[in-house]
Amino acid sequence: MPTIHQLFSQHIEQLQQRVADVLEREELDALIIHSGYPLRTFLDDQHYPFKTNPHFKHWLPLTAHPHCWLIVDGQSKPSLVYHQPNDYWHKTAGDPEGFWVDFFDIKLMANPQDIEPFLPTKRQHCAYIGEHPELAEALDIGERNPESVLNYLHYYRAYKTDYELECIHEANHRAVKAHLSAKELFFAGASEFEINLAYLASLGKSEYSLPYSNIIAMNQNAAILHYTALSASKLAEKQHYSMLIDAGAEYRGYAADITRTYAYRKGLFAELVAEMDKLQLALIADIKPGQRYTDLHLKAHRQLAKLLVDFEFVYCSAAAAVEKGITRCFFPHGLGHHLGLQVHDVGGFMQDEDGDVLAAPANDPFLRCTRIIEPRQVLTIEPGLYFIESLLAELVESEHTRLINWSRVDEMRRFGGIRIEDNIAVTALASNNLTREQNWQ
Amino acid sequence: MPTIHQLFSQHIEQLQQRVADVLEREELDALIIHSGYPLRTFLDDQHYPFKTNPHFKHWLPLTAHPHCWLIVDGQSKPSLVYHQPNDYWHKTAGDPEGFWVDFFDIKLMANPQDIEPFLPTKRQHCAYIGEHPELAEALDIGERNPESVLNYLHYYRAYKTDYELECIHEANHRAVKAHLSAKELFFAGASEFEINLAYLASLGKSEYSLPYSNIIAMNQNAAILHYTALSASKLAEKQHYSMLIDAGAEYRGYAADITRTYAYRKGLFAELVAEMDKLQLALIADIKPGQRYTDLHLKAHRQLAKLLVDFEFVYCSAAAAVEKGITRCFFPHGLGHHLGLQVHDVGGFMQDEDGDVLAAPANDPFLRCTRIIEPRQVLTIEPGLYFIESLLAELVESEHTRLINWSRVDEMRRFGGIRIEDNIAVTALASNNLTREQNWQ
Ligand SMILES: [Mn+2]
Ligand SMILES: [Mn+2]
Ligand SMILES: [Mn+2]
Ligand SMILES: [Mn+2]
Ligand code: NI
Ligand code: NI
Repeated sequence: MPTIHQLFSQHIEQLQQRVADVLEREELDALIIHSGYPLRTFLDDQHYPFKTNPHFKHWLPLTAHPHCWLIVDGQSKPSLVYHQPNDYWHKTAGDPEGFWVDFFDIKLMANPQDIEPFLPTKRQHCAYIGEHPELAEALDIGERNPESVLNYLHYYRAYKTDYELECIHEANHRAVKAHLSAKELFFAGASEFEINLAYLASLGKSEYSLPYSNIIAMNQNAAILHYTALSASKLAEKQHYSMLIDAGAEYRGYAADITRTYAYRKGLFAELVAEMDKLQLALIADIKPGQRYTDLHLKAHRQLAKLLVDFEFVYCSAAAAVEKGITRCFFPHGLGHHLGLQVHDVGGFMQDEDGDVLAAPANDPFLRCTRIIEPRQVLTIEPGLYFIESLLAELVESEHTRLINWSRVDEMRRFGGIRIEDNIAVTALASNNLTREQNWQ
Repeated sequence: MPTIHQLFSQHIEQLQQRVADVLEREELDALIIHSGYPLRTFLDDQHYPFKTNPHFKHWLPLTAHPHCWLIVDGQSKPSLVYHQPNDYWHKTAGDPEGFWVDFFDIKLMANPQDIEPFLPTKRQHCAYIGEHPELAEALDIGERNPESVLNYLHYYRAYKTDYELECIHEANHRAVKAHLSAKELFFAGASEFEINLAYLASLGKSEYSLPYSNIIAMNQNAAILHYTALSASKLAEKQHYSMLIDAGAEYRGYAADITRTYAYRKGLFAELVAEMDKLQLALIADIKPGQRYTDLHLKAHRQLAKLLVDFEFVYCSAAAAVEKGITRCFFPHGLGHHLGLQVHDVGGFMQDEDGDVLAAPANDPFLRCTRIIEPRQVLTIEPGLYFIESLLAELVESEHTRLINWSRVDEMRRFGGIRIEDNIAVTALASNNLTREQNWQ
């Protein structure tokens, strides 16, 4: 096992190389990367929660440090301007500490307004990367978030360093532990809201730290793909049917994104959950470098069609269920996406370092990844099977309605739907399932 | 007791009157008030939590409804364009329902892009009030957030209708219940993080619903005025000294803002807490319409000085402790602020409807209210007594150091500090303490 020092050293070396390349290509002197600062809400003195610039936390595990700056040129030791206010109003940043400090030339800055002397004197050929281009303009930084630089960095961010893979692995570790707490509370009859509190209690972190808002959806709520309402009302025991939980965790700025679906009782829905689990694992086993993610998505539709036929939801062949668009009523979202510093990590559509984009197929407008699968990518694989009122209403009105076993479909409506999502690190030979490597007992 | 229908009817009538007045004064036809929509985080497809425009939720209790619009002219029935998407991705707004619907002419809109036909045809003499002036410009709305209109509305927002007083009362109700859960967990030895979860569990609402981030500060953390870090680490029993909890709740868009401080054991700090409680109640008993809030703040300093003398923290007279600025080392923030749709409600510095401002005195730069106290205002009264390392370090270096009983001060450092905060509705005769009207048992 390499030490964290070795892992991080390779990580920084890799980022330095990318910066050296893009600066040469774009004829720039340096990147000036700003952590950002919290935005004020409208007409108020309160702020939105702080979300750090992903380009900043790519370099070091600081996610709650506004007003910090990195100056990187790909050659010199990266320079970090570390904001450490003298302030009794807020809990202020402690001294920089941890495995990462040796890799930076660190300067302390008490006041955000004092940044100018810390920046390169000639800034016309520097590029600011951050949420506040107007500030960069005031500071005479020549380029602000130039698209060519962002494209280059976003394209290469798909290839995770060993350090990053470890971070996503550890985020999975924490999320799985919290998922188990949530599962226990579901079978104990808790409300969505209570299950979420148990999840947070297990993480030991507040909602603001999550990479995305948890989806904890019981019964029909599972048919709302981004359901985040968290009902606090408790259902009668006999009304407990299902829970879909899509909940993550964050570690050193990296995300886990995991979904599980539970049937409260034995029966057809429980069988469907077990089959979807097999289907998902088969897709993961099929991941091969060189394959286009889109093709894996299409394969998921073919396998789902087979399942719909086997369980007698449809009366046509599997091929016809795909071809006629029937599977898209039951599985209307994409198979997954890149994962990393952002839950939907950038670059999923990019085909090269210039940022050329291959859009999702017209039939699959919500697919978030059309890229060739390659080693060091981290992908989610999250097939679904839902019973969504509005889509079923369209289906019943369509010419295909006679191909559907409506009484069986209707039986399933109260369960909402199924999604099973793991996080996969692609390697040259096989893939590592970062989610199932964990202890789910 | 008036019904909610009666209360709300008077509320709307009052707002209509204000709109009629400001439109006449500014020669405008109507206000177009936008609820807003969630902002995207930098380079991401995720969003900051949605915070509705306070001017929108002033009219109706919708706080989680982006892409809605109000058109008000002070004469006609207010018009509400209610966004109800046909969307299986998100939990979408249900049909408008509740006591408020009768007061609006409601039109449903499926798609935010379709707003134009719902707006007045002539918009050059309309004013947009909302977070997205660029959108208003694209929609050819003549004025965007005109300062004179905002000033007028902000000035009068200080005078709460009976409906609003009821909302703040109910927010207090919920917050007090949650405070009691938190108190119980503190004495049971829980961590700050666990105490916050218990608080949220009592509210049955997630952190995103809070009017401000809870401050739950044990021991020295209480000396950080806006401490929101929520440590999950558990202290040994013998290291439990104190907890300062400043935590609110939201009801129909209105905030409660309550602080309590607890001593874990009997002793000097517990006595100080009891004295600060008396001091705070005495200040509240002294509230009189016609008085300037600033004068109440200055009185708080005089009373705190007396306490510092009585408890032998300082060796000079109370008058000298104020005059030499010593009390400002122990109580560096303002006595309080207006409360309502925002936790620090607008208009605290405004002296008239034109928005003329009286700034905080130079010695009290953090005071948030310099306005004359009048009936229907809701104010917080939150005196404090802290032992803040950086301010004490300045004091020890100053000429006044010999006036301080340092050994006694040093004894108190581990407790952090004390703040006690109630929400007060001012009336012509006395004041209603909305916080202490609740059952604290
Ligand atoms: Mn996902
Ligand atoms: Mn997910
Ligand atoms: Mn307050
Ligand atoms: Mn407060
Ligand atoms: Ni592990
Ligand atoms: Ni009550």
